[in-house]
Formats: sequence, C-alpha cells, structure tokens
Amino acid sequence: MSSSLGTFFRMTSFGESHGSAVGCVLENCPAGMPLTEADIQPDLDRRKPGQSKITTQRNEPDTVRILSGTYQNMTTGAPIALAVFNEDQKEKDYANLEHIFRPSHADYTYHVKYGHRAHTGGGRSSARTTIGMVAAGAIAKKLLALKTKSSIAAYVSSVYNLELSRDYKVPDARTIQKEIEKNPVRCPDQETAKKMERLILDVAKEGDSVGGVIDLVVDHPPEGLGSPVFARLDGLLASVMMCIPAVKGVEIGSGFAGSRMKGSEHNDSFYSDAGRIRTRTNFSGGIQGGISNGEPIFMRIAFKPTATIRKEQETVNDKGENVTMKASGRHDPCVLPRAVPIVEAAAALILVDQFLLNHLSKLENT
Amino acid sequence: MSSSLGTFFRMTSFGESHGSAVGCVLENCPAGMPLTEADIQPDLDRRKPGQSKITTQRNEPDTVRILSGTYQNMTTGAPIALAVFNEDQKEKDYANLEHIFRPSHADYTYHVKYGHRAHTGGGRSSARTTIGMVAAGAIAKKLLALKTKSSIAAYVSSVYNLELSRDYKVPDARTIQKEIEKNPVRCPDQETAKKMERLILDVAKEGDSVGGVIDLVVDHPPEGLGSPVFARLDGLLASVMMCIPAVKGVEIGSGFAGSRMKGSEHNDSFYSDAGRIRTRTNFSGGIQGGISNGEPIFMRIAFKPTATIRKEQETVNDKGENVTMKASGRHDPCVLPRAVPIVEAAAALILVDQFLLNHLSKLENT
Amino acid sequence: MSSSLGTFFRMTSFGESHGSAVGCVLENCPAGMPLTEADIQPDLDRRKPGQSKITTQRNEPDTVRILSGTYQNMTTGAPIALAVFNEDQKEKDYANLEHIFRPSHADYTYHVKYGHRAHTGGGRSSARTTIGMVAAGAIAKKLLALKTKSSIAAYVSSVYNLELSRDYKVPDARTIQKEIEKNPVRCPDQETAKKMERLILDVAKEGDSVGGVIDLVVDHPPEGLGSPVFARLDGLLASVMMCIPAVKGVEIGSGFAGSRMKGSEHNDSFYSDAGRIRTRTNFSGGIQGGISNGEPIFMRIAFKPTATIRKEQETVNDKGENVTMKASGRHDPCVLPRAVPIVEAAAALILVDQFLLNHLSKLENT
Amino acid sequence: MSSSLGTFFRMTSFGESHGSAVGCVLENCPAGMPLTEADIQPDLDRRKPGQSKITTQRNEPDTVRILSGTYQNMTTGAPIALAVFNEDQKEKDYANLEHIFRPSHADYTYHVKYGHRAHTGGGRSSARTTIGMVAAGAIAKKLLALKTKSSIAAYVSSVYNLELSRDYKVPDARTIQKEIEKNPVRCPDQETAKKMERLILDVAKEGDSVGGVIDLVVDHPPEGLGSPVFARLDGLLASVMMCIPAVKGVEIGSGFAGSRMKGSEHNDSFYSDAGRIRTRTNFSGGIQGGISNGEPIFMRIAFKPTATIRKEQETVNDKGENVTMKASGRHDPCVLPRAVPIVEAAAALILVDQFLLNHLSKLENT
Repeated sequence: MSSSLGTFFRMTSFGESHGSAVGCVLENCPAGMPLTEADIQPDLDRRKPGQSKITTQRNEPDTVRILSGTYQNMTTGAPIALAVFNEDQKEKDYANLEHIFRPSHADYTYHVKYGHRAHTGGGRSSARTTIGMVAAGAIAKKLLALKTKSSIAAYVSSVYNLELSRDYKVPDARTIQKEIEKNPVRCPDQETAKKMERLILDVAKEGDSVGGVIDLVVDHPPEGLGSPVFARLDGLLASVMMCIPAVKGVEIGSGFAGSRMKGSEHNDSFYSDAGRIRTRTNFSGGIQGGISNGEPIFMRIAFKPTATIRKEQETVNDKGENVTMKASGRHDPCVLPRAVPIVEAAAALILVDQFLLNHLSKLENT
Repeated sequence: MSSSLGTFFRMTSFGESHGSAVGCVLENCPAGMPLTEADIQPDLDRRKPGQSKITTQRNEPDTVRILSGTYQNMTTGAPIALAVFNEDQKEKDYANLEHIFRPSHADYTYHVKYGHRAHTGGGRSSARTTIGMVAAGAIAKKLLALKTKSSIAAYVSSVYNLELSRDYKVPDARTIQKEIEKNPVRCPDQETAKKMERLILDVAKEGDSVGGVIDLVVDHPPEGLGSPVFARLDGLLASVMMCIPAVKGVEIGSGFAGSRMKGSEHNDSFYSDAGRIRTRTNFSGGIQGGISNGEPIFMRIAFKPTATIRKEQETVNDKGENVTMKASGRHDPCVLPRAVPIVEAAAALILVDQFLLNHLSKLENT
Repeated sequence: MSSSLGTFFRMTSFGESHGSAVGCVLENCPAGMPLTEADIQPDLDRRKPGQSKITTQRNEPDTVRILSGTYQNMTTGAPIALAVFNEDQKEKDYANLEHIFRPSHADYTYHVKYGHRAHTGGGRSSARTTIGMVAAGAIAKKLLALKTKSSIAAYVSSVYNLELSRDYKVPDARTIQKEIEKNPVRCPDQETAKKMERLILDVAKEGDSVGGVIDLVVDHPPEGLGSPVFARLDGLLASVMMCIPAVKGVEIGSGFAGSRMKGSEHNDSFYSDAGRIRTRTNFSGGIQGGISNGEPIFMRIAFKPTATIRKEQETVNDKGENVTMKASGRHDPCVLPRAVPIVEAAAALILVDQFLLNHLSKLENT
Repeated sequence: MSSSLGTFFRMTSFGESHGSAVGCVLENCPAGMPLTEADIQPDLDRRKPGQSKITTQRNEPDTVRILSGTYQNMTTGAPIALAVFNEDQKEKDYANLEHIFRPSHADYTYHVKYGHRAHTGGGRSSARTTIGMVAAGAIAKKLLALKTKSSIAAYVSSVYNLELSRDYKVPDARTIQKEIEKNPVRCPDQETAKKMERLILDVAKEGDSVGGVIDLVVDHPPEGLGSPVFARLDGLLASVMMCIPAVKGVEIGSGFAGSRMKGSEHNDSFYSDAGRIRTRTNFSGGIQGGISNGEPIFMRIAFKPTATIRKEQETVNDKGENVTMKASGRHDPCVLPRAVPIVEAAAALILVDQFLLNHLSKLENT
C-alpha cells in the first residue's frame, strides 16, 4: 500500500517509466544542511543507463531538480521534492507487448491487481522507480558524512558463477568506493572485474542475462541504531533491499552460512580495545538484538538475472492464449553495476532515519 | 522505533521476559468473525517452552487471554488486546549476568541505546516477545481460512549440517502441517527429523547450540497481494522474518541460487492451465514485481545458533573489563522447532494485511 | 512532523512560496478512474489569486500538471504526483522583511524551530501550500461523485460582523455549489454577499483585514465512515480544518451552542422514514460516536483576519530589537472567498480515505 | 481506522466497557524515567466514576497496572502496556437496550458499520475508552515536568448557561490546578463552582443532562513544537480534543470571536521583554503557523449534554420500528468534571510527542 520508506526521515516515491517524471518527497530532513542538485547528481549518474558498454544503451541524462525544501541552497526543514523528468520514452519499442505477459515481469500481477496496466517499459515496476531512492539517498549520505564517521560502500561480489576469491580481503569502505569506480562492473578487485565484464558482454551477445550478488559494508556506523522487535535495523535493511527490483535474497553477517555453525563458533566475543568495546569476530554483521553495535555492518544481496532477454520465450497473452515472444529493445544484461548506488542509497536512508530517532532513546538526551 | 507490524491489520507488540505480561493489540480485524482463546492457544502451545526434550525445559503454560475486541465470542471491529501473563521468572538464574555483556546477545546494544537494561532473560530481546506475534498470527490464520483457500506451512529444512535431501519432494502445505507435528523438530521428513533430533540432543549435551533453516510455503495464496516499490509482498515478508530473533538471512523463490542463473533458465514461463494462468517453474517464489501471482509462495529463513551456550566464553563487563562467563540455566540448544509457528504467524499477519487492502486496489470494487 | 494527510488514500504535501513548485503525491487512489488535469484545474482556479477585486491582485495561473500515476488518462493505482510550478515570485517585495518577525505570522516560530527561514512570502507557511490539498481534493471529489451520492459544499457564512440571517434557510449542497459561484465572496445568499463584498473592499482600502466563518455541508454522505476513539470522523475533519492557515475554531453539528443545551433538547431522535432510519434533528452534525450516520455532515470553521495588513505595526527584528513595520505588496484583505475550495478539498480527502477503509470493517464484505 | 495517537511517542488504545480490560500501549517513552503505578493512579482517580455527588454513582476503582516497559521502576525504552481491569459490569442494566438505538449514542452507527455491536454500556464508544489516554497522559505529564517548565491545567469554564464571568481573570496553570480540586465541578472560581454544582444536581433530579465548556491552559510551553501543514500543533490538539466523547467544538486562541475581528486588532505585536521575544496580546493562543511561540497555549473545548437521560425519548429499534425508551441506570448528568483530566492528558500526549521530535528539527542539534 505504501510508497513511503522510513518513519521520520521519510521518503515517498512517485513516478513510473511512462509518466512525465519520477522522483520523491523527502520529509523531515533537518534544517540547516547545505544542499544543491550537485550533491545528488553524481549518484544518479552512477545509476543512469548508457554509462558503459555493459549497461543498457538507452540514453537518459536523468537530471535531478530540487522542487522544494531548500532556500538559498540550505535545507529549511520543509519536505524536499526531487524530480527527474523522463525523456527517452520510445513507445514503439513496447507496442507489441501490449497484450502479452512477459515471463518473470510484473505484467501479469499488475494486470490482476490493477486491471489497467501500462505496458510501456514496466510502468511502476520499472527500475526507473529507484531514481527517487538514489536521489534521496544522496541527501542521506551527505547528512551521515556531516554528522557521523560512517562510510557506506556497496560492490559487486559475484556475477553468475564468477565470484570474488575467498582469499580476497575486502578493504575498508573508503577504498572500496574508489576501487569500484575504476571498472564498469563496480567490483573492487580489478582482475575479477575484468572477467565479470567479459562474461556480461558474452551473455549480452547471446541475448541472455545474468544475476549476481552485491555486498554492502558500512564502516564505523553509529552504535545504537535500530530498536527491538519490529524496527530492528536488520529488519529495516532487509526490507528495503528486498524492495529493490530483482532482489531474491538478503543476508546479514553470517547469513545462511551461520545456520551451519555452532554457537561456540558463531558467538562474537567482546573484548576491550583500549576502552572501546569491540567484538573479535563479526558474524553478527554489526547488528545484535536488532541494534547496531558499532562494528561494520555487512550484508549480501542476491539479484536474479534480468527478466528481459532477447531469446524466444513461451508465455500467454491477456486472453489467456499460449504465445511465444522475443523482446527487442535495449536492456541491461546484468543489473548489478547500476544497482550498486541503489543499495548504498537504500542503506543510507535507513541509517539516517534511525540515527535521528536514536537521539530520543534516553530521557537524559531529550 | 515502532513496535507495530502491518499498515491496516496492524499488530502492536508489548512485553518482555521480566515484566508481568507479554502480548499485543491487533487493530482492524474486521467485525463479525467468531473468536475465542481456543482459536489462539494451540499455536502458543506449539511455541511454548518445555514441549519436548529438545527445547528448553522452562515450564511456562503461556495461556492467552483476550482482553478486548470481542463480544459474545465475535470480533466487534475494535482493537483486540491479547495477553499472556508471565509466570516462571527465575531472577536468580540471571543475577550473575547483571554486569556482563553476553556475546551475540542484545545486552551490549541495549546498554548503549537505552542505558538502563534488564539483565533478566533478555528483557525486550527475549524470544518471549514473539508470543504476541504468534497469538495475533493465529487470528490472521483463522481469517485466511475463512476467506481464502490459502494454506500456510513452515518446517525445519536444515539443522546445522543436516538438511533435507535434494531429492526430497516438498509436499503440499496441508500435508506438511500434519507431518511436522509427528516429531519434535518439525521437519516433515520423519527420517531426517530423527537425525536432527539426535544431533540437537548431542549438541545440548556438549553445552553448545546449532542453527538451521526454516522453509515457508503458502499454497493457493490470493493473487494481487502486495504493491509496487516499498510495500512489495517480498519486502514485507523479508522484513518480518528478519525481525524474528536469530534470523540472519531470507530468500524468496530462487534466492541466492538465482543469482547464479541465466535469465533464460530463471524466467518462469506462463501457460494457460485450462483457462487459469500459471507458471511452469516458480523461481519467482510466487511473487513478481512485489505482488503475488497465485503460485505457491516459497521462502527460506536462516537462523543462527542460539547465543546462550554452557561453554566458557570471553567477554567484557559493563566497566569494560575483559572477563569470562559460562551460562547456566535452561536454554534451547536449537531455536528452530519452536520458531516454526512464529514463521507461520509472521507470514499470516502480512498476508491478511495485504489481503484486506487489496480489496481497494481497483475503483470498480470499491 | 508529517506532511501527510490520510491513512490509506494518503496525500503528502510539498512546496513553498519561494521554491520552484508546490504540489503533492497522492497514494492509493484506486486504479481505473478516468483522470486528467481538466478534472483538477477548475478547483485550483477557484483558489487562485487575482480571481476577483476582493482577492490579492497577484497573478498566478496555478496550472497543474499530473507527473505520475495515470496512463492513457486513467489512474493506474500508482502514486499520483501533482505539481504547480511557481511563477510570480517577486523577491523584492520581501527584501525589507528579511530580518523582521511579522506579527501573527509564522516568521518567529519558524526562526525558533528551523533557524533558517525563508522570508519571501512565508515559505512553507504560505497559503500556496494549500494548492496540493485542493488538487488532491479534486481527485477525491471525482471519486466520491463516481461511487457515492454525496455532495460537498462549503460557503462563507460570515465576514467580520456580517453574517447570514438566522432565518436564512441553508439550501442543499448542490444549490449552494451554484449560488456561491454567482458572487466573488462565495456566500450563497446574494444580498448578504453584496454587503460582504462591500465590507471587504472598504477594509482593503483601510489597509486592514477581516476574518469570518465558512460552513461546510456534505449531503448524503455514506453511512459508517470514521471509527471509534482516534480515527473519529469528527476528529479527522477537525484536524484537517485546523490545519488550514488562519483557522482558529471548528464546530461540528451544534458546536459551542450545544454546550448550552440540555440532553432532552439536544438528542437527535431516530425515526423510520419509509424504512430508512433518520433523525428528526441533526445537532450531531451527521456524526455519532465518531461515525457518520447518513444525515448531512455540518461543520463551521472560523478564520482569523489576514495577518498581513498595510498599517503600521510594532514588532521585533531577529536581533530582538523593537521596530515598526508596514507591509506593502498584494494581500488578501479576507482569505475566506479563496478558502472555500480548500475547505471542500479537505473534507473530500478525509471522506474518501474513510470511504475506502470502510469496505474492510465487516468480515462478510472482505 | 487507527486506534493510535501520536507519531513517535505513540499511544495505541484498546478496550471497551464490556470487555475484561481497558488500557493502552505507549511506545517510545525514552528510557531512564522513574515510573510506577503511583505516577498514574491519581489522574485515573480524578476521572473515575463515583468520585462525587455530581458524577455517576457507578463504583469502579479503576486501578491501573503497568504490564511492561519498566524494570526496577524505571522506563526501559520498551512499549509500556497499561491496563485497568473492568469490574462493575451490570449486564442487566442494558438488557432492555439490546435492540434499541439510543438517540445521539453510537448504537446506530456501530450497527451500520460493524453489524455486531455490544449493547452493554456502549462498548468501544464508552467513555471508559478514555482510561488509556488518561493513564498514558499521566506519563506524558511526568516527562514534561522533568524536562520542561510547562504546566498544563484544564478547568470547567461553563456549564449549560452558567459561565465564568468575563471579568474573571484566569490565574496561572499551577493555581488553577489547586483551585479546581477544591470543588467537585473542577471550576477554578469557587463561587461559580457552587452554582454549577447546584445546577447539575437540579438537572440530574429532572433526569436530564447538560453540556458545557472546558478551557485548557499550558503555561510556559516549549517553543517550536508542531510543524507546518499537517502536523500543526493546533491541528493535532484540535484532533485529539474532538476525539474525546461528546466534544462538538474546539477553539484555539481567539477562536470564533477572532472571526469577528480586524487584522489590526487581532495581530499579536511582538516586543522584547528583557531579551526574550514575547507578544503583547495572545489571540494566537500560543501557536503561530502551527508552531508554539512560547506564549501560553489556550484552547476552549465544547461538550454536548450527556446523551443518556432518564426522560422518555422517541427512537427506533433494529427492525426499524418506531419505539419509545427511557434509560435507567447510573449516568453522569454532566460529563465535564470527569473530562478535565482527559483534556489535560490529551494535551500532554500531543505536547510530549512534539517535544521529542522537535529535537530533530535542526541539523546542528542532531
């Protein structure tokens, strides 16, 4: 029902591929933060199509406009409306899909739920709906940078059957941020990245697509974020990641591997590191009892292969007749490179919401 | 921040292990549904401690009382308050833990966030907080049974390194419901269940604990549940599952395995089954574009091993000094058997909320 | 904190006088309703400045654009983003106000709360923020017209000391709708309207301003809207009306006069009108126990005089120094004529939200 | 739909007259506040029936229990569940009402909305539902007392045609708090109180009832509470007051009288009072642009006469037949004396919610 994310620092999303704009309204960004479009555009550029040979070749500049909420380049405390106006809407590409349910797309479920669906580009199920999240996430990242020591970095850790070697030591978040922008895949290991790039190009040539895994690291997160029971930080992060199109799985800390461990192996012993309480291992992924403990937050997010492929597929039309179809047009053979900034934005939005509310957890601070 | 689950059919949780009651308030259960405590108690009995040799031997009857929201054994539309009064609070068991942060528990994070923590039995982080969810979930299950053809079944599919054989064919939900109650592990395959039971007893003897995986199946779910972007059915389910204590990972449909597939393998072809549109495979796990497509919903939920073990562990106390500790008391060596009804309840609550709201998605139905 | 109105049919407002656009995002408008800008613009034209001699002479066309949520002129179920781009921003008019707190404006309170305020035109406190509500309200009115027999009409019943004669019989809502558009005041009695118009012109000449009262009538509302305790229909209506700038009082049914009555006078006797249950009097104003009973809903809303006047006033500046000020520029001497469509929109939004949710109140209907 | 009040410091209400308990769950009370039942019971005693000759003679001790959210008499940050178990349920009193719609009660609207209604004592429409609000409000009052200089006082300013003389100078809130407890009416002027008491007794003897007005004063409220557009402090206060049973009108500051004033009379001039910015008049009632300006908050709340009277009335039964009825039983001839603590509690809950959130309005404070 809701198109909102967050409880206080809340983002309400709007827009779809066929409409005139996509964007969001971000409520309760505190007043007094410097903000212009230049803070937001770089992340949108990392998300936009046409940025490299391995992404869709659609050409959308995705230029953001701040419609409200700032005055003289400073936030005022009022809702910040952000919009990207759609430009490259090739209706023709989609005409042949008007009456067909594309396999593993939202065509059929939207048809069942809403009756009236937009067949052009997926409508509200389009990955363009993530533009609002990336834009709002850039504001969240800026706030985190101003008020905390956190660094957020997401990166591609596997594509199809290619994954970072188990010996690969994941560097700190700031290093990851630099390394991933040196290749189009956004994998921090340049060797593996090259292999992944080649794989994606090969798959694209076949007219097929591949999935993969994105990892998320938050270094030096504030302690105390999240709360028990239903606003657990792990629950909030899992929810928002699972809402990114194509995501089918989410792990925090040890994840599924943790289910194959004993308590004596899995428990993260506390120790005192010159007065600061830390854990020797981090199977918890930085979150215990739903609340951050100050250790790095670590998540893994599984993406399925892009549903749109240029191979012939069996399906049915809206009369219920069995038909075959073959997509044409320009599609991402692998969504992961462009999904990296989406994962980062999603995390940043949750963290800021919880960071702000955490100020109210103890009476002595209020 | 929030102790609520759901948007319309909304459950607000309260209570902790050391207080006088745990329970919840369930809003917007439609009026006119027969309801007594007898509808709720059976699921609480499946969750309660002391039910078998492989669960904690604490003895809590966990008897539920309906405090409001019914009249003459019928729902009135008013909020339904449910409470289980705590009985077996052995404060002594916990006295030695007052100043110690137990590894991989919420002790440290609660201390950081709230200052004042309850050291007895985990307080608000206790698994007793799931009682409210199981109780409200029983009401949700009843509503689903009255108004839809859905069947919900969760079951233990792996414990530590023991898992259901890949050849094991998961039966339909109704069969699972029967099979899992034939053994204390709640695994539908009796052979595997026996091995799991032995493993859990062995681990308990060692003073250690193990994790595992629970699978969830919803047969014949209504089509059209969930909505795009942030109230996706997969996002809602992932969120609630990740909020169950000890959960570290969640998969829907193909999950992480899907990330190692090609689009041509992963896409679920539609076909017409005597007029009804179905898919030949179900890698989507019954959810496409965030909305149920009528195929079985399938999820996997990974649980870490219980944090409380009777082995000596290193940790720190609240003065930041390195100490060792060894838990005594009665704990579950494996939380999974008792978590099965929790997973089912969590799913039922999300499904009913979305089922009700789905009535409002098309103008013609309003 | 929240810039949202409504629980399910929810409108999130954005924009301020000095930004580039004002508008809103309307969530959960059911799919399948015909909708174009032409459904919305007429109400914005009734609200816009410069529409008559007795309103401010600023010239803003206030042209609405639908940015999302429709496809082929039909709602899709996705959020509907509506925007009016600001055009007539005369910054010069406000330069002298940069450091002054205008009496009975939001200047001081915004300064205290947010630190950074926009002195141009009131920013987020500007009446332009009601544009989003009027635009979304037009969609709500259309939905009500399609699905119910309700008619909503607001009208000016008093200006300063001029009020509709106690003998004046308020006509039905449809007649009011026609009558009020025959004069610039939006009073349904043409004689009184003329006097009010003259009064407003006289007051404007003095450089002063006046308040007044707007009445709201909803004929043939659906029964059963609202719910007990905190989502009472009267509470929701009072809240939204009190959120319209300049409102200082709200009455439902008998209002303050009801406080001077005895129960035997005030109780609305039920009787059977050819099988339909009605009340002989309507001191309840159509709402009993927080829920509509099908009788006309009747409210009165008190507006204070416009704070901006062209007379010299004492105040302080942001250094805390006592100063005098005199506003120049173009302001409404009386906000009521332009507030009539705002009151109607506010009521329509609440009614639709409750109308939709009311479908879920009984199990048998779900 | 919602049984909740507040956004962060949120109270969810449950219970009805015929159930086993009434109460609430209060979320996000900051951790570290001393709290026991003794902080709450006094306000419940001021609300309870049977406290004086002019209230209903039902005898309900209304003893509160804290079910969760505290540990060692200190709040933990977890939800605080509060319950009062119902004792004096005389079903017999209501047997004759099973099929009758009492005039100006919620019987008919509940019947229409929910089908199944509780005829005993009004069910969810009973004034007993305010117990949760009074209990949670006592916690809010304590928090305000610990963290701010605010004092909240409500008092009866008129009963039927008897009102405080216009010359009566309303004392400060702390004085009001003392004065009103010297008489059963809770009017701060002892002379007027005596007359009101006599009037109420006379009316009770007739079997009739009367309405009246309660005034609310908040001295020294924090500045900056509330926010623009839909979470205006005046809107929030109006909403919660209109949700108290029997309320038909709400005014803030000048209220309806303000609608008969000119801007030059009504504007509250600012001046510097030894560095502190204050206003010379307070027609704004302490709220400007929806945000508190530090001046006393002033509201007036109109209550209709109690619907239950011991006079014969015309009505219909649930077959739609015209019948007559005459209530027996024990009812308040005037609800105002017992409504004073309810009004105070309602205000306290809103103020604390806004007080907490206001900490997050400026970036520099976060």
